[in-house]
This record gives sequence, structure tokens and C-alpha cells, in this order.
Amino acid sequence: MEKLISVTDYLLIRLEELGIKDILGVPGDFNLGIVEQIEHDSRFHFISDCNELNASYAADGYARIHGISALITTYGPGELSAVNGIAGAYAERVPVLKITGGIALAKQKQKLPLHHTLLNGSYDQSLKIYEQITCTSGVVTFENPGVKIDELIEACYLYRQPVYIQLPQDVAKAMINPPGRKLNLQYPIKADSNILVKRIKEYLDKSNKPVIIVGDLVRSYGLQGFVKQLLITSCIPFVVSWAVKGIIDENLENYAGMYAGEFSLSVIQEFVESSDCILSLGMFNCEINHGEFTSRLDRKYLIDVQSDFISIADEYYDSNFADIIMQLKDYNSPAGIREVKHNPHYTIDYSSLPSSQIEHDHLIYLLSEFLQDGDTLILETGTMSFTAGYYKLPENVTVLSSVNWYSIGYALGATTGVSLAKTSGRTILITGDGALQMTAQALSAMLRYGLKPIILVINNDGYTIERAFLGKNSSYNDVQAWNYLGLTAAFGGDAHLAKVATPPELKSTLSQINSNSDKMWLVEVMMDKYKCPPALVKLAEIVANATTKLKNG
Amino acid sequence: MEKLISVTDYLLIRLEELGIKDILGVPGDFNLGIVEQIEHDSRFHFISDCNELNASYAADGYARIHGISALITTYGPGELSAVNGIAGAYAERVPVLKITGGIALAKQKQKLPLHHTLLNGSYDQSLKIYEQITCTSGVVTFENPGVKIDELIEACYLYRQPVYIQLPQDVAKAMINPPGRKLNLQYPIKADSNILVKRIKEYLDKSNKPVIIVGDLVRSYGLQGFVKQLLITSCIPFVVSWAVKGIIDENLENYAGMYAGEFSLSVIQEFVESSDCILSLGMFNCEINHGEFTSRLDRKYLIDVQSDFISIADEYYDSNFADIIMQLKDYNSPAGIREVKHNPHYTIDYSSLPSSQIEHDHLIYLLSEFLQDGDTLILETGTMSFTAGYYKLPENVTVLSSVNWYSIGYALGATTGVSLAKTSGRTILITGDGALQMTAQALSAMLRYGLKPIILVINNDGYTIERAFLGKNSSYNDVQAWNYLGLTAAFGGDAHLAKVATPPELKSTLSQINSNSDKMWLVEVMMDKYKCPPALVKLAEIVANATTKLKNG
Repeated sequence: MEKLISVTDYLLIRLEELGIKDILGVPGDFNLGIVEQIEHDSRFHFISDCNELNASYAADGYARIHGISALITTYGPGELSAVNGIAGAYAERVPVLKITGGIALAKQKQKLPLHHTLLNGSYDQSLKIYEQITCTSGVVTFENPGVKIDELIEACYLYRQPVYIQLPQDVAKAMINPPGRKLNLQYPIKADSNILVKRIKEYLDKSNKPVIIVGDLVRSYGLQGFVKQLLITSCIPFVVSWAVKGIIDENLENYAGMYAGEFSLSVIQEFVESSDCILSLGMFNCEINHGEFTSRLDRKYLIDVQSDFISIADEYYDSNFADIIMQLKDYNSPAGIREVKHNPHYTIDYSSLPSSQIEHDHLIYLLSEFLQDGDTLILETGTMSFTAGYYKLPENVTVLSSVNWYSIGYALGATTGVSLAKTSGRTILITGDGALQMTAQALSAMLRYGLKPIILVINNDGYTIERAFLGKNSSYNDVQAWNYLGLTAAFGGDAHLAKVATPPELKSTLSQINSNSDKMWLVEVMMDKYKCPPALVKLAEIVANATTKLKNG
Repeated sequence: MEKLISVTDYLLIRLEELGIKDILGVPGDFNLGIVEQIEHDSRFHFISDCNELNASYAADGYARIHGISALITTYGPGELSAVNGIAGAYAERVPVLKITGGIALAKQKQKLPLHHTLLNGSYDQSLKIYEQITCTSGVVTFENPGVKIDELIEACYLYRQPVYIQLPQDVAKAMINPPGRKLNLQYPIKADSNILVKRIKEYLDKSNKPVIIVGDLVRSYGLQGFVKQLLITSCIPFVVSWAVKGIIDENLENYAGMYAGEFSLSVIQEFVESSDCILSLGMFNCEINHGEFTSRLDRKYLIDVQSDFISIADEYYDSNFADIIMQLKDYNSPAGIREVKHNPHYTIDYSSLPSSQIEHDHLIYLLSEFLQDGDTLILETGTMSFTAGYYKLPENVTVLSSVNWYSIGYALGATTGVSLAKTSGRTILITGDGALQMTAQALSAMLRYGLKPIILVINNDGYTIERAFLGKNSSYNDVQAWNYLGLTAAFGGDAHLAKVATPPELKSTLSQINSNSDKMWLVEVMMDKYKCPPALVKLAEIVANATTKLKNG
């Protein structure tokens, strides 16, 4: 007879199976039993963030690197503070296991008006809330708890979206059999997928100017390797969508740049939109990817491979993203591939830039010199995330940013998780003053656990990106003028600190960073209050035009 | 013909009517239009918190003092970061108008996959989420927008719970007639309420040992004046429930102490539970008020006046809390009132306390000397909130704390709103290190807007209250050792700072605070890591017993 284990043990076996080593969260009464168990389990570290929103961002960051993550909070206030972070992971297809230590079912049965409840006699509001922002949600009960846990975890893994797992205190301690099988992490193979793949290949075969868009789902599913193989074997020119910049080596000869409708360099937009066969691999259908809906991808030439469907010349079929990609990977173009003749990047003539003040062009130029193989560059939503897409990245450097949810403050929180999950290479964050203020205490968690990201805070005196849209000089776009470099000491930690106001200072500091990696770096980059990168100015114009069109018609 | 006004104007007229001067929130794309309008409206200040959770706590604090508040965030990430704060306001009946700047209906109609949306084709998840934690929720559309706004605001005011008002960008700008009438803020009068009140009076008349419990709804409905009148006129002895400590002057002769089942002083528990007519005025039916369900209020002697019902000797009737209270206020007891012979408070022999280290008793004793007429004492959930209830407060000092939602970090956020809303008297917060870390940047908002609360941070090296329950020495109950006194400077502000480790130091600092009120005070109070106040030790024991009972039966 097999030795029984607790339901918590069962869950932890599954987390180990998923390669999760760091469990993010915040302790709280209803999860203390689970957290106490993790405390004494050498397979895991419990990483306690200062608050649950930051922990949820950290879990998102961890999952974007490792492929999946676990976040544990308590029922009620704890889990409801994490709602925004999980919603973002849902929107951008990041698999986070949102685990809640729930109220003992025995207490629920008694209908006790317990603390952390809404005092309206029911306990299911959190579940209903999480149902809105997860691919599936459930409460683990005494009835087949192992089966329920497996179902939820497998859904998270296969759909690449968060799930909500509520584990009541008493169920967590119940004794059950250990897992009798491994988790089923095989992406479903649709019966007719080979027919679909055959059809895709036929379209590609007969096209004269095929192009591939490498989209967001490639990151979400972790299929970079397969896609790279397809791109190398087929030689088909490719572009990347906005938020997966760097996911495929930009030094490949067939790299044609970053595509986002009119937000692209016009030569790239033309290159993509003139294609007679656009194979789009998981590009999110979202505002930024379509350049505020200025993209003109002719659907009769478009093969759009999405998570659970595919459209070929505007006909729709059920399919699975991973299944299709894995079958496509060996495709070899028969002939007639367009050469990429255009420069897929903006280039910066650094010497011609004004040298008194740091502009976005200085920053991106110096960064491109600074970045190294294996680095992850996290960009907060803001001026820099609207700049970086246009410039060349060194080999094997990836950009990580929020492509659509755009929750300001996300990036600093996510940096905790990214730093934990990365097994090699550096984590570099560029954030802004307004954003940093949202989630500042994430620095404390990073200091506490000895993480050493390189953090550049653009101090441009408020929400510069919002100023581009409305209220250029309105007080609500100001933020309190913090002494950013005082934060790490106030948070009880030690970091390398620097404040730079001119390009030479920035250059010199970046060089110091390269030779001092023993501690976190926090660099305050002084920039003009109103200065927006060209792309953001364009975006503001396009948005303004779209609004006018909407008004007039 | 009346001049048309915008829907935003209409909303602002209503906020003015409610006496709201400070509108809490965070700017974000979908609310910029509204916020920009507030910017140029001299009737209001827009108070921008660093993040939405803190803003929601601030809105809760503002409403607990002023009676109602308004919180504006953007659709999507912004509003979802405020979920926990609004849930707490719902649980504890605090009327907050949660206003969301929503996506233009014209854009929603086009089904555009906009940023800040979940990319699943619908825009109603936030509404569905808020439906779980508000008394009513709605989207204002072009169809009778003024009527809809009034409905939602009136529901918030009358039910004393948050409502969710989503105002899409284009609706916000639509032109409508100004309000044709004032808001209807009259509590509904139930047809048979005079019969119910008559019956209550009969019960009181014939009882020998009546007692009144002044409960949480008195604070929620703002009916302190009426209840005080009842207590003075009737001379019936009264107790207060846990979270409304100080709401009625404790110097009244018929004050009998704080009641919370076995958490009460035993003489008080006996006094209440031996009564033959217990008139409970809006005591929340929650864990702490019942002393972890150790209260023994015989229902046949209980008259329980709740928000929308009343039970008399275990028979239930529809009613309205305010309606009942207002009719009861002149009740005059015929005779036979018990004298309160017991001391309704713990008393502290200060001279006998050890003088080397600050204990909770020192703190509460010195505070009771320190507090002045008009002060509001905010207690974070933690060791101090389980202490203060037992001690005597000076006249006209009220305690504000979360009675059931217990979201750690709440109190610092709420302090912003309380400081804004108070028209006289000081705001004093006692929080803990773990709690402060959750919402630390609330200090920034207070510094930005020149607020001057007196903040005492108990530094006892982590979650001492959690240690009392589980993981006495577990690392998850530790927090990063911050330099708390470095925070205000890091947040770009100026404050009086002090660190105290002994009772004489604390005493001396409190005296300095009394003579220097020009700036915020931040005082770090060093206390023992494991030291819990007696009440918390008792609570932990009762919880442990309850858990054992549950297990065994």
C-alpha cells in the first residue's frame, strides 16, 4: 500500500514536476499551513513580497521566463490585491497558478461570519471574481482533490493562462494517495492538424513573397526553438511583433524588423503588407500590434495561427498553436524567397545627438552597446517601451514588456520574478518615476532575497506618456519628487547607486555596471519632462486621428 | 431653456452636493478627461495616490469620516488594483463611489481589442467583478445618464456600501440637462416601523436589566448624535462593539465597556449576557465582535437592529436601521436602570511596568495621556488593534480600525483619507512594520498634499500577530529590516522623525509631538519580536481551542 500524503504535499509534488523552485506570495492566516510546509521543504523557496500586487507581478515575470509560476496568497484581502496582476497575466497569456489558502470547508459549512469575508453570508465571491480573469478556476474539496489539482494545473499549462486554485485549510491537510501518473503536459493534437499544416505549406509554396510574423504566443508557449528552426530552414523573411522583440536572433539574414502597422518603420510596413502570404504565428490581436488599428493585413493572404484556432484566407478552423508550430518547423521553402534589402532598424548617429541632455536615443544607443548575450531587458510601459522596438538588439537579448494590459508599475514587480527565474544572464529594467512609485517596495523584496537586477529609473518628473495624450501641464500628471536613490537604504538594503544627467555620465555608469555585478544597481536617469520618443509622438497623433474619425463618423 | 451640461459636470454637481471636496484616485488613460475637468474645477482637489490600492484605502478612510467619498481610476488595471480596498469597504459598510473612466461606448461597439482589456472580446469583466463587492454596479450610457448616476449614488448613500459607476469616455462628454432635483438622501421609512419601535420600547419598559450595544452601523450611518441622545435620555447602560470604540463618550455614567464575547473583560461579558433585554444597535455579526464565537447573547432577550432587518426575540422584520434609530432616540426608561458598578476598562499601573522596553501597555497608557479632544486614532490590524479596546479613551476621541476585513496595510492608506476629511483634530496612526511595507508609498501622497498625521510604526521585526498563530520563528513571518525613518526623505518629503526604544523616550517624544504640529510625525517604536498583548494571546488560545473542537467534532 502506498504511503498517504497530504493534499499540500500533492500540490508541491506537482510544482516540483513543473520545475518551480521559487514560490511567490505573501503569508496570511488562511495560507499559513501551506507556507509553513514550504518553509521546511528544501525543494522550494518561499519568496515573500511586501504586498500581493507586487507578488502577482513577480509571478508573471517568473512565468514569462520559466514557463509557469506559482503565487500563494490568503483568502479575501490577499487574493483580491492580486486581481490586477492576474488579469494582466490572463490578457497576455502568462501561466500563473494562483493558489489561495482558503477557509476550512468545515467552517464554511457552519456559515460562520469569519474575518476576511464580506459578511454577506457567502464565501464564493473570490471564485466568481477570479473566474473573470483566469482560464479556469476551482475550489479543491475532499472529493478527489488530486484530480482537481491536476485538472487546474494542466489547464494553466496547456492554455497558457492563469488558473485559480483555492485550497481550503482542512482540505490542504487531508491525506490522499500520491500522484499515480505524471502531469499531462502534452499539447492536444487535433485530428486534422496535418491537413491544416499541409494547406499552410501549399500556400507558402505557391506564394512569391511570403513573410512570417513571429508573435506573442511564441513567447507564451515557449516555442522559440521551433520557430527559429522554421525560420532558418525555410529562409522566409520574418518580422516580430511589438512585445516579442529579440525573441529570435535579429542577426539572422531574413530578419526584416518589428511590425506594428503604421507604428513600424514604413519600409517594414510595406514589406509585410505587400506580401502574398503572411504567416502570422500567434500575434496578439491587440491595439499596439496593429499600430492603433492602422495595420492592413489582407485577410485573403493571411494565415493567422492563434492559440486554439487558425484562419487561412479568412476561413476558420479549430487547432492548437503548439501542435501547428511543431509540425511546421521543418518546412523548407521551394524557392523565390525575397531578400531583406531594407535596414530593419532605426540607426542612430550617436555623434550627432546633442550631448547636454539624455534623450531616449542616447539611452537606447548606449544600451545596445551595453547589453550582453543572455540579458533580459524589461521595459515598463512608458516612453522607453515605445522606443526600444525600433533599434537593434545584440544577439540573445530578449525584451520583456506588457503588450496590452499596460499596468503601470508592473515591470518593477515582474523584475523580482524574472531575476529569480533566470538561470544565467542579467536582468535589466528600465522604468519611470511614476511607475516606480506604484510598486516601489518590490525593491525591498529584491534586496531581501539578494537579487541583483540593474534598474534604470527615468526621472522625467511625472507621467510623461500621459502628458503626450492629455494634461501636458496638469498637476495630476506630476508625481511627488522622490529621492529615488534613497530608496534602497530606506528599504534596508545595499545597492550601487548612480544619478546621471548627461550622455557621458550615462556611458560611464554603464561601464561601471559592467565591472561591478556584486549588488543591485539603481541608476536615476534625468530626462526632460516633456520629451517623448518619436514613436510615442506618432502614436499620440494616430490616437488623436482615430478619435477624430470616431467623432465624425 | 436650461443650459446643457456634460455628464461629467452632472456627476460633479452631485459630488459637491454630497460635500465631497477631495476626490481620490490615480489618473489613467480612460479617466483623463474627467480628471482634467476636476483639475480646473475649484470646488474639488484631485488627490493622486501612488497606486490604486492605496487610493481605495484612502477613499475608505475619507468616507468613514465624511460619510461618503469618491474614488476615480481608469478602466482595467487601475480599477482592478482597487478591488481589495472596495471589498473591505463593502464588508464594513463604508460608502465609496467607485468611479471608473471607461472605454468609449463607440469603441466598445466596434469590438476593438483595446489596451487595458483582457483581449477576449468583451468589456464587462470589471463590472462583473465589482458586482461581487458593491451593493450595486452600473455602466452609465447615453440613455438617461443623469438618472443612472443618481440611482447609483443614492444606493451608495442609503445602503452605506460602495457602488461601481463606470463612465465611458464618450458618455462623460455627452450634454444633458442639469439635475432637476436634489439627491434623495432620505432613509426609507418602512410603513410599520412605528409598530416595531413601539414593540422595542415595550420590551425595554418591562425589562429589569436592559443593556444597549452600540455597534458598527452607528458609525456607518453616522448616527452617533441620535444614539448619544438615546443613551443620555434613557440612562440605559451601554457597551460598544470592538471597532466603534470611542464613538460615544466613555465618560458617560452608563458606559459599561467594550463587548466582544470572551474577548471582553469578564465582568463586562457577564454584565451584557445577563441582561434581560439586549438592544444591539447595528453590531456587525462578525468573528471579532462575537469573541471568536464565544458570545452568548440569548436570542430571546435580544433585539438586533441591523441595516435592513430587525430581530426581536428571534422574530425577523424588514426595517431600516436609520429609521428605527431616529424614532428610538427619545426613549426614556421608566425606572429600574442598573448602575454600572464595574470599571469598564483595564487600568494600568504604569509605575509597575518594566521600564527598559516598550510594551503595549506602555504605549496605550502614554497614548491615553497624549490623546486630545477631537483626535482620531487609527489602528492597523495587528497587536495594537487587539489592545486598545480595553483601555479608556479621553472624551471625543474615536478609534478607527478595520473590524473584519483585516487587510494589512489598510490603515496607512486610510490615514490619507482621514487626514483629508477631518475638519478639526489630529489623525494618529499606529501601524506595524509588516503593514507599513504593504502600502508604504501612501506616505508619499500625504507628504505631497501637506497632510500632517502622527504615525507610530511598531518595529517588532515582522508579523508578530501571525507569529502568535503559526510559525513563531519561520522566515515568512520576518520582514525586510527597513530604515523606516529614511522613508519620508526618500519620498521627497519632510517630517519630524523619532526612534524610541524605552518608555521614557516614548513619553518624551509624545510630548514633543504635542508642541510641534507643523509637519507629519513618523515615530519608530521598537518593541519585542514576540510580545503580544494579553488580548491577542487570549484570542490565539480561543482560536486554537475552536480549531481543536472543529477537528474533534
